[in-house]
Order: sequence, then C-alpha cells, then structure tokens
Amino acid sequence: MRIALLGGTGDIGEGLALRWAYHTDHEVVIGSRDPEKARAKAEEYETELSSRGVDRKINGFENAMAADRARVVVLAVPAYHATDTVESIADSLDDETILVTPATGMKRDDDGFHYNRPGAGSVTQLVANAAPETVPVVGAFHNLAAGRLADLDTDLGIDTLLVADDPDAKDIVSLLADDIDGLRPLDAGGLNNAAEVESLTPLLINVAMHNDGLHDLGVRFE
Amino acid sequence: MRIALLGGTGDIGEGLALRWAYHTDHEVVIGSRDPEKARAKAEEYETELSSRGVDRKINGFENAMAADRARVVVLAVPAYHATDTVESIADSLDDETILVTPATGMKRDDDGFHYNRPGAGSVTQLVANAAPETVPVVGAFHNLAAGRLADLDTDLGIDTLLVADDPDAKDIVSLLADDIDGLRPLDAGGLNNAAEVESLTPLLINVAMHNDGLHDLGVRFE
Repeated sequence: MRIALLGGTGDIGEGLALRWAYHTDHEVVIGSRDPEKARAKAEEYETELSSRGVDRKINGFENAMAADRARVVVLAVPAYHATDTVESIADSLDDETILVTPATGMKRDDDGFHYNRPGAGSVTQLVANAAPETVPVVGAFHNLAAGRLADLDTDLGIDTLLVADDPDAKDIVSLLADDIDGLRPLDAGGLNNAAEVESLTPLLINVAMHNDGLHDLGVRFE
Repeated sequence: MRIALLGGTGDIGEGLALRWAYHTDHEVVIGSRDPEKARAKAEEYETELSSRGVDRKINGFENAMAADRARVVVLAVPAYHATDTVESIADSLDDETILVTPATGMKRDDDGFHYNRPGAGSVTQLVANAAPETVPVVGAFHNLAAGRLADLDTDLGIDTLLVADDPDAKDIVSLLADDIDGLRPLDAGGLNNAAEVESLTPLLINVAMHNDGLHDLGVRFE
C-alpha cells in the first residue's frame, strides 16, 4: 500500500516513515511544501535503513504530488497547518484516499502543556471539515513520542488510539498501525471522541516533565 | 493515618476503602450524608475483609463527623456534589487536613463519553475554589475503574496521576497511593494540569466500550 507522509520531514513524520519502511513492505512517500527538502529527507531515511541492512526506495515530493495515488495520506504537520495542507492537496484526493491526522493543539503555561481545543471540537474534526466530503478522515498516532518512534533500536510496547466515523477506513489504518512492531491499535470510537484522544498528548508531556526517569512516554491501556 | 472517604458508600469510595484497609494500617472512616448508610457500608467492608482473614474496625459517620480529625479527606462523590460536600464539611477541616478529589465531569452522546469541563477549568479547581484557603487540595485517583479497585482478587498494575499546588500535600497522597499494592502514583504537576488528567476518565470508558475484551481499564505510562 502506498502511504504518503505529508510533513514527513518533521519528527513524527520521520518516525512513522522509518517504522513503516523498516517493519513492512508498504511504499513510503515523503511530502513537504518544499520538494527539495522532501527528497533530502527521503534520502536520509534510505541511508538510515540501509545502515540496518534494509534497502528501500523512498521518494520525496511536494505535498500534492506525494498525496497523488497514495491510498493513505498522513498529515504529519502541526495543527495550525492541518487545514491549509488539506486544502493544498484537495485535487490529489479521491474516494479511495484515507486522510489520517495525528495532530493535536496545545498551549503552554508555567505548569505544563494544555489541550487547546479548537472551536470545531478537535483538530481531527477540523481536518474532517476541511476535507472533501467523500474522503474519510481517521485520527490516529497522536500519542506517540517522536524520538522513541524514530529510534529503531527502541521497542515501542505502547498503544495508539483511533477515531473515525468510517469503519472501513478505520480498519485499514488500524492494520497499518498493527504492522508496526510493538504498536497496538485501539478503537476509541467516532470522530466525536477525538478531543479526549488529543488531550492525552499534553498529559504525556506533563507526566514526563514531572517524574524523574520518565521521558518519551507512551501509554498502555490495561 | 486517618483517612475519611466521603461518599464512601459509592463504588470508587468502596474500592479505596477496601484497598487501604486491606493493604495498609491506615485508619479508614466511611462518610455519607446518611450516617445509617455509612455504618451499614462500613460493616459490609468489615465483613468482606474478615472473609479474607483481615480483622479491621471501620467506622461510618455523617460526612462532617467522618472528616473531623482525619488527616486526609477523599471526596469520593459525583462531580456535581463536590462543592456542596466541601461546604458541608468546611467546619471540620483545619490546616492539617488534605482534601483529595477523584471526581471528573462527563457527558454522554451516541459516540461515547466526553469530558465536561467546568468553567473553573477542572473539577479539581472547583473543589479548590470551594475549600478554605488554608486547606490544600490534591487531584488523584480519577482514572481507577471502580469494579477493578473493589475486587481485592485483582492485581491493579496501573498508574494514578496526582495534581496539586502544595508539594507536601501531594507527597503525602502520593505515599498513600503507593501503599496500595500495584498502584503507581505519578506526578502530573500543578492544579492547572487537572483538566487533562480528568479527561482521561471518559477516554478509558470509550476505549473499553469499543474494544472487545477490554473492560475496567486502567493506564500505564511507559
């Protein structure tokens, strides 16, 4: 399956690109607003994989071209770029495309990080509102610590939560998550449940900040 | 240490009462608006413990009397009763008392449960606003599934998150949590971080609702 990681030059995009390229046979494509940067990062990932004995071709393109013909498009961009990015690639999306959003909105004060809930209800809902009506949106991969994800020497051993209103799209993304060693996908229900999923990200940062020895935290539901 | 569980006849109060009485030497006192009900439940807990070979005296009183001379007072009441309960016991609190609140606000729709954030910012902050200024408030025990907590045959193996602005009060409640076998207290920072902690409760319910085989869920930060 072809997976496009838009914002694939950023840290969460890097982690997902490396994990899918390392653990699976899916075709991974890196997208960026700047195609040169996309190509440079894609080459970096190829080098990293090659150093581990895995020879994979990873292409880098401008976002709309990366999204073109991808079955799954991951919006690995900051929340404030999510709707712009969807609009910039709208012509590359068709009924077969699934949009995946891992972004969450946060603000910081002296105590720590806080969920900055958008008026739409969640960042996932913002993306769904910006997407063409026929394109299903899945919220997933919000709560993965980027450093841990990108370090292929680290076993993950954590869960990721999925929200979507389209059950088939959710199933496909769930299988893609399950393809990554040590990552367990869990169904958190419909898009209306996205805010509680997105709120987990600032909580993980706060817990890591306030407890010695805990960093790059993930979560297990038990 | 004397611990008063107000609303100790409800399910989360029952679980904490049984766990502290079973695993520790702390004196456990049950509070209720109805002293008869408090006494009846306290006797039930004594019988349950006795059946496991643990003979403990557990007293039951009206809330204000239960809170009197307790070092730690746990408000194991629904969120909409939290401030009323604080006001009804205000005369029993002194500078040595620590108030603990495990309540969270939730609403439900067809998709699942949602965090119903109070205007004050969190239920923990609501309690802090209602408490006398000299009484420190600690948010803790929000994310414990009541059924699992009350079943002494079940190993917990989960974390609980603490928020407070008073570090000494937080340390004392953290030690009390740590006294319960299988429960790991983690510091989630100041009271301003309470909303993200309280949001975890509806998320746990939603994940349990949407995944076969998962119920009475807790969480581990790893």
